[in-house]
Amino acid sequence: MQALGRHLLVDLYGCNRERLDDPDYITAELQAAAQAAGTRVLGSAFHRFSPGGVTGVLIVQESHLAVHTWPERGYAALDLFTCGHQTDPWAAYQRLRCAFGATQDNVVEVSRGLGAGE
Amino acid sequence: MQALGRHLLVDLYGCNRERLDDPDYITAELQAAAQAAGTRVLGSAFHRFSPGGVTGVLIVQESHLAVHTWPERGYAALDLFTCGHQTDPWAAYQRLRCAFGATQDNVVEVSRGLGAGE
Repeated sequence: MQALGRHLLVDLYGCNRERLDDPDYITAELQAAAQAAGTRVLGSAFHRFSPGGVTGVLIVQESHLAVHTWPERGYAALDLFTCGHQTDPWAAYQRLRCAFGATQDNVVEVSRGLGAGE
Repeated sequence: MQALGRHLLVDLYGCNRERLDDPDYITAELQAAAQAAGTRVLGSAFHRFSPGGVTGVLIVQESHLAVHTWPERGYAALDLFTCGHQTDPWAAYQRLRCAFGATQDNVVEVSRGLGAGE
């Protein structure tokens, strides 16, 4: 069966804590990751938490990219869900892993929509 | 190890195709699902595709809820990611599975941030 999409669930550990708490940096890097993955951005929603942490989501033509950060733990959760044959969520992963300076990570790839054939 | 969050990846099959293509219905049901899960909505982003399909994401205090629909296939992909002990992503799942009239589904629960302890 053919999947409709590939979804990477990424836990990034040992990240740069200042970058995890910088909404402008995260917005720019998420946009760059969307471009690296070959997706087209259609919309976004961001929120800065107090005392720290950022949530950012990009809606893209091919599904969505999301990040949630916990600066006090040096941790970021990424969701990189892309559909179609022209996109590569692993390219977004590579961009964001470097952008946040992660020293460890855990990645799970889940195939989406395996039962949704034509 | 304690996880920071629970993330449900849900594939819904055999859904009501009209509901999958109704942005107002999907917006209302996603808001209701967020309430059912015990989350607080902080922001949102929605897009209606042509000729059909809807993407909707809610940013919540406790992470995010997302839906992508393929009306022509009767398929919806849900991502229900909640953090903290006061939330229940399974309650959002139950609400949305019924809302879309799914006849089959596949659910994967992934623990997020297992290595991000205090």
